[in-house]
Amino acid sequence: MKLLRVNMNQLQVQREPVPPVYEHLGGRALIARLLIEEISPTCDALGPHNKLIFAPGLLGGAGVTTAGRLSIGAKSPLTGGVKESNAGGTAGDTLGKLGLKAIVVEGQPQSKDLYVLHVTNDSAEFVPAGALRGLGTYATADQLQAQYGADCTVLCIGQAGEYLLHGADIACTGEGDQRSNHAARGGLGAVMGSQGLKAVVIDKAAARSVSFADEELFRTASKRFAQELINDPKLGPKGGTHLYGTAAITAAVNEIGSFPTRNFRSGSFEHSADLRGETMREIILSRGGRIGTRCMPGCVIACRNLYVDEAGQAVVGTLQYETIALIGANLGLKKLDDVARLNYMCNDFGLDTVETGAALGVALEAGLADFGDFESIVGLLKQIGEGTVLGKLIGSGAATVGKVLGIRRVPAVLGQAMPGYDPRSLKGNGVTYATSPQGADHTAGNAFGARNQVNPLTVQGQKELSLKLQIVAAMLDSTGLCLFARPPVIADPQLMVDMIDGIYGWSWTKEDLDRSNRDVLRTELEFNRRAGITAADYRIPEYMREEPLAPHNATFDIPDSDLDTVFDAL
Amino acid sequence: MKLLRVNMNQLQVQREPVPPVYEHLGGRALIARLLIEEISPTCDALGPHNKLIFAPGLLGGAGVTTAGRLSIGAKSPLTGGVKESNAGGTAGDTLGKLGLKAIVVEGQPQSKDLYVLHVTNDSAEFVPAGALRGLGTYATADQLQAQYGADCTVLCIGQAGEYLLHGADIACTGEGDQRSNHAARGGLGAVMGSQGLKAVVIDKAAARSVSFADEELFRTASKRFAQELINDPKLGPKGGTHLYGTAAITAAVNEIGSFPTRNFRSGSFEHSADLRGETMREIILSRGGRIGTRCMPGCVIACRNLYVDEAGQAVVGTLQYETIALIGANLGLKKLDDVARLNYMCNDFGLDTVETGAALGVALEAGLADFGDFESIVGLLKQIGEGTVLGKLIGSGAATVGKVLGIRRVPAVLGQAMPGYDPRSLKGNGVTYATSPQGADHTAGNAFGARNQVNPLTVQGQKELSLKLQIVAAMLDSTGLCLFARPPVIADPQLMVDMIDGIYGWSWTKEDLDRSNRDVLRTELEFNRRAGITAADYRIPEYMREEPLAPHNATFDIPDSDLDTVFDAL
Repeated sequence: MKLLRVNMNQLQVQREPVPPVYEHLGGRALIARLLIEEISPTCDALGPHNKLIFAPGLLGGAGVTTAGRLSIGAKSPLTGGVKESNAGGTAGDTLGKLGLKAIVVEGQPQSKDLYVLHVTNDSAEFVPAGALRGLGTYATADQLQAQYGADCTVLCIGQAGEYLLHGADIACTGEGDQRSNHAARGGLGAVMGSQGLKAVVIDKAAARSVSFADEELFRTASKRFAQELINDPKLGPKGGTHLYGTAAITAAVNEIGSFPTRNFRSGSFEHSADLRGETMREIILSRGGRIGTRCMPGCVIACRNLYVDEAGQAVVGTLQYETIALIGANLGLKKLDDVARLNYMCNDFGLDTVETGAALGVALEAGLADFGDFESIVGLLKQIGEGTVLGKLIGSGAATVGKVLGIRRVPAVLGQAMPGYDPRSLKGNGVTYATSPQGADHTAGNAFGARNQVNPLTVQGQKELSLKLQIVAAMLDSTGLCLFARPPVIADPQLMVDMIDGIYGWSWTKEDLDRSNRDVLRTELEFNRRAGITAADYRIPEYMREEPLAPHNATFDIPDSDLDTVFDAL
Repeated sequence: MKLLRVNMNQLQVQREPVPPVYEHLGGRALIARLLIEEISPTCDALGPHNKLIFAPGLLGGAGVTTAGRLSIGAKSPLTGGVKESNAGGTAGDTLGKLGLKAIVVEGQPQSKDLYVLHVTNDSAEFVPAGALRGLGTYATADQLQAQYGADCTVLCIGQAGEYLLHGADIACTGEGDQRSNHAARGGLGAVMGSQGLKAVVIDKAAARSVSFADEELFRTASKRFAQELINDPKLGPKGGTHLYGTAAITAAVNEIGSFPTRNFRSGSFEHSADLRGETMREIILSRGGRIGTRCMPGCVIACRNLYVDEAGQAVVGTLQYETIALIGANLGLKKLDDVARLNYMCNDFGLDTVETGAALGVALEAGLADFGDFESIVGLLKQIGEGTVLGKLIGSGAATVGKVLGIRRVPAVLGQAMPGYDPRSLKGNGVTYATSPQGADHTAGNAFGARNQVNPLTVQGQKELSLKLQIVAAMLDSTGLCLFARPPVIADPQLMVDMIDGIYGWSWTKEDLDRSNRDVLRTELEFNRRAGITAADYRIPEYMREEPLAPHNATFDIPDSDLDTVFDAL
């Protein structure tokens, strides 16, 4: 496999052999190692020394079900630390097939011009992209697919990334895509914008270019993996995830009192039933939309949907739980139609819905509009695309909105907004938010699924649970596996080892895999330490330790001493 | 002496004996110790656990010339670290005479009401201040002096502090004041605003309430101190500081190429002659304004002025060098009339002119108006008082403006804007900016005065110079002495020891004084360490290490290893 080095300053590309230090790494693991080896952790995240990395996971391109996620990473302008954010779709699979371990984008153009990088089966070239300036992600992807073929994959930024907003993300659009996936968190779209890179277009790979080390071993394991997912009552064809998408959990999160409502003022929303996955399914099916579709070809879970309006016209896909929580209940909105419309706008501008929803929540608390007032919220959000100062402020994320508007109730850690679980009543997630090198993130070690094993309201057991989940998350993010696909590989890590060994012939053991997963966290923590991030920076906001959350009157009461020792067992 | 404890939550005040740990401390030293003893360094700076401290220096109230400065401190919302900012005027002297070592304001009101704290000779009381809401500092001070007597001292916030803006300061207005002094840096006005405290009114002290331990020793030393200042060619009646105010240095700073021009794009301004102290003197005298007046009664230097318009009407006083640099050259403005008008607006809104000038410079770089376009700049600044979102953004300081508007050329350290010396061509100041626990600050250890001893453009000697100056600054800020008055006490520290021993009878030696000064820095550095601030946070911005500054094509090239070892000799 190769690394594709892209120099935006010289407008040169180079395919190079993978240096040995990166050889056994994929996705998030590769990003962490590459950043700590190649950039100064104190560099300006939007300056010329940051690097933006696109890396499929270790399983990318091998045809493993649900394993085609693309990791994107850089030093985050939002957290000031290491960042990996991944998205489903076709990019991870395509890059894997092309034999590209990563695309590493370095430097900034000498002019203010924008470029498209076009990656073909055997080379890559720059194309001036001035005509795409100011376009949203949908129009950008449409134009590029019209130009380069409907089967190419487009990774692009919208207006938010061009404006260098810290809430900007990167949209990933594939063949026949139902409206794009997003590598949403940490402001990576701003890094791409700072590099003058409007889009990366990746041609469809003819076939996998790298041969298997032990195809028999690989096939047996990957087949069993797929079968176990199909057999899983939650994930299989009759499971909630397939039937209701990620929103299958809405009711349960609301029930445990962790559903962020009106800027995290409450953990339960009186209209939560209107935001349930079951409700969403009914609406979508009654209007002729689609549900139970796939972002990655061959995915056996198929949690995706295409939300349509009353006329049956596509609005957004896929409408997800985190968006429903942050843009819905958190803004006091009870209609999925409203959430979908705002979700569309965020996607088009190229904005993280979690960060933007939280930022809007803080803005509403400051009185810029009323909670539940959809039209006014649209008016606020619209300004991000228009690039007004107010729009840029909201697009900068929740922490900055709070700072400017004088609001201290900001649900963020390391400058990054919390996803759809209030940590006061799901304390395991609080531990993850307050210790993960990725900042508050729902994929870094989400304890919701373990709520029946560890009581979400007690202190005991959270620290151990979070560490375990963070190690698993590191594995998923480094192999390209979707979070939902974790049960079989948690139950039997040998399954993962066999797939990796079948592809690469490394003769890994379960211990090698475990060490590798832990190394991801170690590397990331070390990057952040060098970037100047300390325990004091990782803390849950003060108000959440003091302001009780309805309905359980819970505060975040995990002692600092627990937080400070989470990684002692790493 | 006593501490006055003010509890805003319970609306109670209490005079208490000074705890032994605070006994030998004044001003900045007392603030540093009190903060580290009594608050958690990780607390939310605008939350209920921060404390706002008003403390005269050790010499306060004893009648030493130039020694009546008032230190104000808290955890800074701007830097996230310890903050002390001091102002001239009558407050330090008055509190010293009243026998108050400090006023310590704690907690936040249970309602959103605003209060005035009225400190009389023997007690203190709260007065509802709803009628003052939304008023600028001038109107606030005028109304309170009309109510409580023209001879009272008023410490108050303007709109900026009420809005909790991180660039908000605290205005100090005394008897017959020529337009107020400001404890400007670090956003302390926002802390006061978060406590619901619109103003502190301090009645004039009848006489010094504390007797001298050795009046003879004190009188001899303080008399000699005053005489040495009078004899100093720069500070005496024929010196530039008296004749031209702090702006006496404009020409020289421009000449060494360190005069911040158009958002620190250049170190020399083609119109600098129009901004010189000599020009200012001519304008003021020709219009019947005042120059060579005093902020503190009895000051023998008398660097103050009252800048008037063409009709002879007061605009602002005192117009100072730092303001002229940041609001003048840094915005491309060449007319002192324009600078004075903007200075008036900042003062009235209760805004740090350094932070606000730097924030405006970044906003101009982002294209919100043209450099040199006075009317448009007025339009931007006006919005801070009006509380628009754009106004609040600019009032939040340079770093936040840069973050939101996508500008990485932000002249700030620890989130606090640099004063009027570009560190690339006055490297000693760069070392101070990048190591002082106070962040970039012109009073924390200003190397400009030593430019003939240590070449400002070389690396060598800067680290040692900065440490020496930072220790001296700690002494000045802890005794209430003005920065200008340092030569006699640097030349002969025994002079300071005699004054202190004469007042308190502590039998201090020069070594005790030196240890005490160094302890200030040690305590502050430790506070910041506990707050999570590391070497990585203190750095000079990346672009200043790479973008050469005209006219010397200088970059900031002091190695990190020098910065990291400045305090090894502490």
